[in-house]
Amino acid sequence: MGRFIWQNGKILPESEAVISVYDSALMFGDMVFEMTRSFNRKQFKLREHIERLIRSIMYTRIPFDMSIDDLEIACDDIQNSNQFEPDDEHRLMINVSRGTLPMYSETERAWNGTNIMITDFPLRWTVAGMGQLFDNGINAVTPSQRAIPASLLDPRVKSRSRMHLQMANIEVSGYEGNNNWPLLLDEHGYVTEGTGANFFIVDKCGALLTPHSKNILNGISREFIFSDFSTLTLGDDITLYDIHNAKEAFFTATPFCMLPVTSINGVKIGDGKVGEKYNYFLNEWSKMVGVDIKGQIQAWDKGAKKGPSAYKFK
Amino acid sequence: MGRFIWQNGKILPESEAVISVYDSALMFGDMVFEMTRSFNRKQFKLREHIERLIRSIMYTRIPFDMSIDDLEIACDDIQNSNQFEPDDEHRLMINVSRGTLPMYSETERAWNGTNIMITDFPLRWTVAGMGQLFDNGINAVTPSQRAIPASLLDPRVKSRSRMHLQMANIEVSGYEGNNNWPLLLDEHGYVTEGTGANFFIVDKCGALLTPHSKNILNGISREFIFSDFSTLTLGDDITLYDIHNAKEAFFTATPFCMLPVTSINGVKIGDGKVGEKYNYFLNEWSKMVGVDIKGQIQAWDKGAKKGPSAYKFK
Amino acid sequence: MGRFIWQNGKILPESEAVISVYDSALMFGDMVFEMTRSFNRKQFKLREHIERLIRSIMYTRIPFDMSIDDLEIACDDIQNSNQFEPDDEHRLMINVSRGTLPMYSETERAWNGTNIMITDFPLRWTVAGMGQLFDNGINAVTPSQRAIPASLLDPRVKSRSRMHLQMANIEVSGYEGNNNWPLLLDEHGYVTEGTGANFFIVDKCGALLTPHSKNILNGISREFIFSDFSTLTLGDDITLYDIHNAKEAFFTATPFCMLPVTSINGVKIGDGKVGEKYNYFLNEWSKMVGVDIKGQIQAWDKGAKKGPSAYKFK
Amino acid sequence: MGRFIWQNGKILPESEAVISVYDSALMFGDMVFEMTRSFNRKQFKLREHIERLIRSIMYTRIPFDMSIDDLEIACDDIQNSNQFEPDDEHRLMINVSRGTLPMYSETERAWNGTNIMITDFPLRWTVAGMGQLFDNGINAVTPSQRAIPASLLDPRVKSRSRMHLQMANIEVSGYEGNNNWPLLLDEHGYVTEGTGANFFIVDKCGALLTPHSKNILNGISREFIFSDFSTLTLGDDITLYDIHNAKEAFFTATPFCMLPVTSINGVKIGDGKVGEKYNYFLNEWSKMVGVDIKGQIQAWDKGAKKGPSAYKFK
Amino acid sequence: MGRFIWQNGKILPESEAVISVYDSALMFGDMVFEMTRSFNRKQFKLREHIERLIRSIMYTRIPFDMSIDDLEIACDDIQNSNQFEPDDEHRLMINVSRGTLPMYSETERAWNGTNIMITDFPLRWTVAGMGQLFDNGINAVTPSQRAIPASLLDPRVKSRSRMHLQMANIEVSGYEGNNNWPLLLDEHGYVTEGTGANFFIVDKCGALLTPHSKNILNGISREFIFSDFSTLTLGDDITLYDIHNAKEAFFTATPFCMLPVTSINGVKIGDGKVGEKYNYFLNEWSKMVGVDIKGQIQAWDKGAKKGPSAYKFK
Amino acid sequence: MGRFIWQNGKILPESEAVISVYDSALMFGDMVFEMTRSFNRKQFKLREHIERLIRSIMYTRIPFDMSIDDLEIACDDIQNSNQFEPDDEHRLMINVSRGTLPMYSETERAWNGTNIMITDFPLRWTVAGMGQLFDNGINAVTPSQRAIPASLLDPRVKSRSRMHLQMANIEVSGYEGNNNWPLLLDEHGYVTEGTGANFFIVDKCGALLTPHSKNILNGISREFIFSDFSTLTLGDDITLYDIHNAKEAFFTATPFCMLPVTSINGVKIGDGKVGEKYNYFLNEWSKMVGVDIKGQIQAWDKGAKKGPSAYKFK
Repeated sequence: MGRFIWQNGKILPESEAVISVYDSALMFGDMVFEMTRSFNRKQFKLREHIERLIRSIMYTRIPFDMSIDDLEIACDDIQNSNQFEPDDEHRLMINVSRGTLPMYSETERAWNGTNIMITDFPLRWTVAGMGQLFDNGINAVTPSQRAIPASLLDPRVKSRSRMHLQMANIEVSGYEGNNNWPLLLDEHGYVTEGTGANFFIVDKCGALLTPHSKNILNGISREFIFSDFSTLTLGDDITLYDIHNAKEAFFTATPFCMLPVTSINGVKIGDGKVGEKYNYFLNEWSKMVGVDIKGQIQAWDKGAKKGPSAYKFK
Repeated sequence: MGRFIWQNGKILPESEAVISVYDSALMFGDMVFEMTRSFNRKQFKLREHIERLIRSIMYTRIPFDMSIDDLEIACDDIQNSNQFEPDDEHRLMINVSRGTLPMYSETERAWNGTNIMITDFPLRWTVAGMGQLFDNGINAVTPSQRAIPASLLDPRVKSRSRMHLQMANIEVSGYEGNNNWPLLLDEHGYVTEGTGANFFIVDKCGALLTPHSKNILNGISREFIFSDFSTLTLGDDITLYDIHNAKEAFFTATPFCMLPVTSINGVKIGDGKVGEKYNYFLNEWSKMVGVDIKGQIQAWDKGAKKGPSAYKFK
Repeated sequence: MGRFIWQNGKILPESEAVISVYDSALMFGDMVFEMTRSFNRKQFKLREHIERLIRSIMYTRIPFDMSIDDLEIACDDIQNSNQFEPDDEHRLMINVSRGTLPMYSETERAWNGTNIMITDFPLRWTVAGMGQLFDNGINAVTPSQRAIPASLLDPRVKSRSRMHLQMANIEVSGYEGNNNWPLLLDEHGYVTEGTGANFFIVDKCGALLTPHSKNILNGISREFIFSDFSTLTLGDDITLYDIHNAKEAFFTATPFCMLPVTSINGVKIGDGKVGEKYNYFLNEWSKMVGVDIKGQIQAWDKGAKKGPSAYKFK
Repeated sequence: MGRFIWQNGKILPESEAVISVYDSALMFGDMVFEMTRSFNRKQFKLREHIERLIRSIMYTRIPFDMSIDDLEIACDDIQNSNQFEPDDEHRLMINVSRGTLPMYSETERAWNGTNIMITDFPLRWTVAGMGQLFDNGINAVTPSQRAIPASLLDPRVKSRSRMHLQMANIEVSGYEGNNNWPLLLDEHGYVTEGTGANFFIVDKCGALLTPHSKNILNGISREFIFSDFSTLTLGDDITLYDIHNAKEAFFTATPFCMLPVTSINGVKIGDGKVGEKYNYFLNEWSKMVGVDIKGQIQAWDKGAKKGPSAYKFK
Repeated sequence: MGRFIWQNGKILPESEAVISVYDSALMFGDMVFEMTRSFNRKQFKLREHIERLIRSIMYTRIPFDMSIDDLEIACDDIQNSNQFEPDDEHRLMINVSRGTLPMYSETERAWNGTNIMITDFPLRWTVAGMGQLFDNGINAVTPSQRAIPASLLDPRVKSRSRMHLQMANIEVSGYEGNNNWPLLLDEHGYVTEGTGANFFIVDKCGALLTPHSKNILNGISREFIFSDFSTLTLGDDITLYDIHNAKEAFFTATPFCMLPVTSINGVKIGDGKVGEKYNYFLNEWSKMVGVDIKGQIQAWDKGAKKGPSAYKFK
Repeated sequence: MGRFIWQNGKILPESEAVISVYDSALMFGDMVFEMTRSFNRKQFKLREHIERLIRSIMYTRIPFDMSIDDLEIACDDIQNSNQFEPDDEHRLMINVSRGTLPMYSETERAWNGTNIMITDFPLRWTVAGMGQLFDNGINAVTPSQRAIPASLLDPRVKSRSRMHLQMANIEVSGYEGNNNWPLLLDEHGYVTEGTGANFFIVDKCGALLTPHSKNILNGISREFIFSDFSTLTLGDDITLYDIHNAKEAFFTATPFCMLPVTSINGVKIGDGKVGEKYNYFLNEWSKMVGVDIKGQIQAWDKGAKKGPSAYKFK
C-alpha cells in the first residue's frame, strides 16, 4: 500500500522522497528532472526521456556516471515496487541534483556527490479535473510575464529553476473563467510554450505549426507528433495574429497527451470548437498505445474530489 | 550536540531539514528565503532580513500569516536550541515555500499549506577558506552568462530559482587561478552583482558607487554601508570601464561582511592592493559589532580542512 | 440646446465635428490633440494644454501659424457658445491635423491645409460611472501588451496613433472584476502609464515616485502634483516589486484629477484602502479650484444611466 | 458627376465620407481598412482584400456581422454608383471602426456600434506623378525612424495607427533628390517595408527575396508575385548589405503594382537601371489584367497638374 | 619647414608618421589615441588628454610604461620641433598601438612591442571651412546608423575601431544642404554624440543638458563646460522630442571648441538663431585662453582653398 | 631575399608596407581587406576573395575603379616577385582604404584618393604553433564580449574596425589552458564566429550546422564546405545547448583550412576526440589541392621558434 522510491541505488519508502535544504537543488534550483507516464503500466518513450535527462545533466555539468540502460532498469524496478489500484497508470519523476553544497557541511570541504531519485505516483493525480477540457477546450491567455530567453536560462534544460512559470500561473489565475492556461510570449512577442506544455496551431491551409525548438522545452509529446505521425510540422515564429487566424490549436504534454485550445485571450479560434486535426491525432494516439486517452481521464474525473485547479491562486 | 531546526512552530532535529520533492519549492524553485549571521551570538540586522522576506512572500503571493515579531521569536528559539563550539557564531536560514502542489496529493485537491522552516548552522562552515581573500583580494571575472533582468525574474525577490547563478559559478571556475569570483553583467553590459554578494567601487575622487537597486538583490550589508556609515553612495550604471579606472572595489555579503576585489578579469584595480576605504569600513564595522571580522574568519581558516572552494567545478 | 464647435475660425454646429476619411488624421493617425476640463466653467491649466499642443505640432511638423493667445481665445469662444445644464462643466477637445492627403484630391497636387477643430461637451459624460472608484479604488492590471518605446513613437507627442492602448483596454477587460484599469509596462518591464492616466506610488518612507518623463505622456495633472503642491517627486524606474511594496498608489488625469489604485494584479497595495497622501492631495486640489472634485463626480454618478464601462469589450 | 459612398448599407453622397471626432477611429487610430484598385473597371483580388479586412477585424475585436459576400456586393454597388471619366479606374477604400466611444455620448453608456464605410475615387489621383518612376526608378532611403515591431503593433493588421510611417515620410523628404522613398528597418536592422509598399530584391543568382511575413503588411500584390507567377520567393532577413549586392530591387503595392528601386541610400543597385526580372513581371502582369500598367499611369501623368509629391514635407 | 614627429623616444621627420600594415592598429583597429590643440602655442588641457589616453591603454591592456610626465615632455619636445607660419597653432595626435602581431614576424613568436607616436600639424587644417558655421549653425541629422553600445565597444575608450562613425558621415552626406552633421542615436533612440563632437542642449528653463557619460566619448571640451564654468549640467537621456523643444543646442570638440546647432533634421531649434548661452560660453572661453576662437577660425577660412567638406562623400 | 609589395600599380620593397596615420584606415578603421593562401604556390579561391573585397568596397563607398581581372593580375605580379624558401607557400594581404582625410592635408581640401596595397608573406608565419591543434583540438570559450550585430557594423564587410575581436582574444587568454579560442555569442546568445574563423557543428544525426550567414563573415572556406563537397549544411541559430549535444565541431579559416573543436568551455564535445566528419573533409580537401594540409603545418611547427600564441596577452 505504501509507495516506494528509488534513490542512489536503493528502494526506499515514499517518506524518503525529500531533499536537504542544503542541497544545490534547493539553494539554486540546481536540479534537472524528467516526468513520464505509462499506458497500461508500460512507460511511454522512457528512453527519450532519459536521453533528454542526460543532455540536461551534461549541460549543467552535474557529475554523473550511470548509463542510460542503468537508469531504465532503475525506472522499471521502482514501477514494479508499486501498485496503484484501481487504475495502475504510473507517473515517474526522475530528479538529479549536484548534492549538498560544500559550504554546508562540517566534515569535508567538497561536494557530497550527485543525488539521483526516482519517485512513482498515480497518473490520475496529475490529470484529475482535466477531463472536461477534452470537450470544452482551453482558453490560452498571454500573461504579462514573458519567457526567459534561452541565452539566459535554456528551457531545453529541464531544471527546477522556473519560478517565472509559477508567476505566469498566478497571473493568469486572475483572469475570468475556469479554463484559462498561460501561454508565454518571448521578449519579441513570439509564442513559446505553456507552463508545462507545448503549443501547436493548424493554419487555414491545414499546416501544423509550432514554435521553433530553440526557445522552449523540446517536449517528448511534441516530437511524437512530428515523428510518429510523419506529419510535416513547421517550426515558426508564431504571433498572436497567427493564432487569431488559425483553424485550431492544442497543447501537448506527457500526462494528458493533447488538449484542445479553443480560444485565445477570450476570442474563439476558428469556430471555437475542438478541431478535426486534434481529434484525428488523439484517436490515432489512443490506438497506438491501446488506451482511450480521453476516456480514461474523464472516467477518473468523475470519481475525483472537487477542488481548485493547480492554476488557481488566491 | 545534534542540531535542531524550527518548522511550522515545532523544534525538530536537523535531520528534518528536508523538503518533499512534490513541494512547489522543488517543482518550480518556488521558495523564498533569507540567510543571516550573528556577531557574538547576536543576530545582525535580523529584522531587516525578516522584512525583506515578507516582501518576497507578498510578491510571490505565498499565503502567509505569521507576524514579523513571531518570526523573530522563532529565530531566537532555534538559535537558543543550538550551541556551536568552539566559536558559537550562528548562521540562520529561513525558508518559506507554498507547499506540496495539489496535483501530487491524493487526499485533496488543494494546496497543503505554506511550509516555513528555520535552520541554524555554524557560520564557520560558510566562510572557511575565505580568510586569505581579506589580504589577497578577489579577481572579479565577468562570465558570458548574463544576469536575468528584473522584468523576467526580479532579483530583489530572494527565491531559489537561480540556476543561472550556478552556471556563472561553473563558467568562472574554468578561469586561471584560485581567487576568481563571478561578477555578472546585465543585458546592457552594466554590472549587477556576484552570485551571492553585492559590488561596490571607489572612484578616482573617492566617491562610492554601486549598481542601481533595480537589477540586483538589495543586500542588507549593502544597505548597511549607506545608512550606518552615513556614506554618500551613488546608484549607478557601472561598466567595465568604470571598474578599470576605479581606485578600489569590494564585495559585500552577510557571512563575510566585505571582501576586497583587487583585479577585474586579471587586470589590477588601482595599485592592485587592498584599498584604504575598504580597510576603513571593515575596521569601523568590526568596532560596531565588537568582533574582529577578518581576524575571526582567518582564525577559522587555520583549523579548516583543505578542499576545493564552492566555486570550483570539474 | 444644440452644441457648437470651432473649426478653422468659424463657429459651427456640433454635427460638423467630423473629419474626412481622406484626411491624414485618418490615413495615418496623424492628428495631435488636447483634452481639457473646467472647474466652475473655468478651464483648468488651459495655457499648459495649449503649450503641449504646440510642442506636438512642431514635432510632427504640421504647418501651423496660430498663436497661443489666438488658441486661448478660440477656446473661450466655443465654451461661451455652449451651456450644459444642470452642471455646466465643460470638456474641450482640440484637434489639429495636416489635412487631406494630396493624393486624394483631384484639383491640386498639394496639401489642402491644416485642419484645426475645437469641440466642447459635458465633463459629466467622461466621468460617469467613475464615482465609486474614489471609494473602492482601482485594480491596476499589467497587460501582455507593452508600451511602444519613445524611440518608435514618442508618447509625449499626444497623437491619435495609439491602437496599442485600445488593445490594452481590450485585454484587461477579460480580467475578473469591474475596477480593472490597464497599467502598461515598457519593454524592460518598467511601469509607464495607463491608457489615459499617469501613475504614482507613495513608498514606505512617504516619498512620491512616478515613472521618468521620457517614456510617457507628460500629463498636466501629473505636473500639477509636482509644482503646485511643491512636493518632491522622483522620476524613477518603477517595477512591479516597487508597487507591491508601496504604501499607496494613484492615477492622475484631466477629467477625474486623481483616482486611488488599491491593488495591483489583484494583490492589495498597502492595506488595500484609499491612501492618506491621496486624500490629502485630493482635498487640497478641491480647495484650490473651489470644487469638491469627488463629490461632484459621485453626484453625477447617481443620475447616470447604467451601462458597461468604456474599458469593457465583448 | 458627384461621387457616392456606401455606409452601413446606404448609398450616400461623397460629402458623407466623414468620421466623428468622437469615434474610436480618431480617438485611438482604432479603424481597420483596405484599399483596392480596378483594371478596366474590374476590382483586382477584391476577395483577398476582404479576407484580410476580416482578419484585421477579428484581431482588433471590432463587433462585426457582415459576410464576405455581403461586403463584395456592397463594393460592387458603390463602384456601379460612380463613373470616373475619362479613365474610369476605381480605387475603393473600405473603413471599419468600432464607433463612437461610450464616454462621448449622453444618451446611453454603450458603444453606438460598428461603423462601415466604402468610398470610391479615381485611381489616377493616387498614382499621378509616379509615371517617371517606372523609367527612372526609386532611391530607397533608410530613415532613422524604425518600424514598430509586431509584438507592439502588428503590421499585418491594417489599422490607422501608423503615425510612425508618416514620420518616416517626413524624414526622407529632407534627402537630396525627388525620387526618394522610405524603406524602414526593424529594431535589428533588417529591412521591413516602405510606408505603403512591400520590398523585393533579386540576388546575384536570380533568386527573389522579400522580408519575412511576420514583420510587415502581407500585401496582396506581394502575394500575387509568389502565387500567380509560381515564382519561388524566399522570406528572408534582408540587410543593407544584401541590397548593396543585389542585382535589382522593386516595391509592390496595389495602386501602381510594381515600381523599380534602382538605388539604395544613393548607391546604385546592380547597374542602376530598371531590372530584367522587374520588366518581365510587369509585362506578365499587364497581360494577365489586360491593361498596360505602366502606359496607363504614364498617360495620366502627362495631363496631371504639377505639384509636390505626397512624400515632400516642408 | 619640414614637420617632425616623435616616435618611441626619437624625433623623426614627418614622413615616418606611418604604421605597418601588420601592426595590430591596422589588423584590428587596435590603437588608442588623443588629439589636442593649442591656444597661442600653449596646449590646452594636455594633462587631461594624457590621463584619458592612459585610461584607454589600461582598458585595452596595451603594455605601457611611460609616465604621464614623460608623455607631457614628449609632447612639448615635438611641438618645439615644429613651427607653423603664419598662425602657429599646433594640433598634436598621440597614437599608441600594441605593435606588430606575432604571426606576421619571422624572427620571433612574440609581440614586437608597443608603438607610441606623436605627430604635430597646423590646427588650421582641421577647422578650415568651419568658419561660417559659427554664424549659420549646424543642422544635426540623425542617421539610420546607430551608435554601438558601450557593452560591445566602449566609446569612452578612444580607439581607431570606429568605421560606424564613418558610415554615419557617409549617410548624412546625402542629406540636402551643406551644414549637415550626423548626431547618432543609440539603440533606444537616445542621443549619443556626433562623429567627433559632444552634444548639448539648453532647455526652455535655461538648464544645460547633455547625454549621460556612459554611452559617449567623455570629451575634454565637454567636461570643460561643466567644471570651468561651474555650470550645472545634467546628464540625461535626450530624445528628439527634447531637441525639438530646446531653446538652443551646440556641439563641443577640441579643434573648434563649440559650434552652434540651429536645426535638427531640418527643423529650427528655438528661433533657429545662434543661442545666447552659446555666445556667452564662447566669449568666456575666448577670454580664458586669450584667443578669439571664432575670429581666428574665420580668418583662416578666408585664406583657405575651397573644396568639399570632410563630411561629403560621393 | 627582401620581400616586395604592390601599391597602386607599383612594385615596392616591403618596407613601404605602411599606412599614414592620417589615412582614414587609421582614423576610423576605415580599410577593407582580404587575406589569402596558396597551395603549392597557387592562390586558393583568389577570385572569390576579390569578389568579396569588391562587395566590401561598394558597401563602404570607397571610390574604386580597378576591375576584378586587374586585381588578379596584381596579385600574380606580387607573388611572382617573392620567393619564400624553404616552403614557398604565399599568404597575400590586400588592403583598400579611402586615403588621407582632407582635414590632414594642407595643399588641397579633398580626399587624396583610394590607397590599394597588396603584401605577401610566408603562410608558415601565421600557422606556426597550430600543428598540435590538428590532433588535440581547440577548446572553444565563449567570452563575455559579444559580437557586434550586423545592423551596427556588418561583419560581412571585412573591415579593420574590429577592436571587439581583439578584446575577446584578450579575455579568453585568461582562461586555464593553452588551446582556448574565443567563440563569440551574439546579443541573443546565439553563436556567431571566432575572431578569424567560422564555426560548424555536426549534430547527433550527422547533419552539418553553421550559424546563419547574416551575422558573420561569410568565409571562403566556410562556403567551400557547402559548395565543393555538395554537403547539405543548415544555417541555424546555434546555442551552447546545441554544441553540448553535438557529435563534433570545427573551425574553418583560410590559413589552416579546418581545425577540430573538441570541447566547449571545458566540456567535451561528443567523445572529446577529433571527429570523423572533420577527418573526412580534411582528407578530401588535401586531395583536391594536392597538399597534405595537416602534415605541411605540423612539419613547419617542428622548426618553429617557441613563443606565446597570438591569443595570449599579459
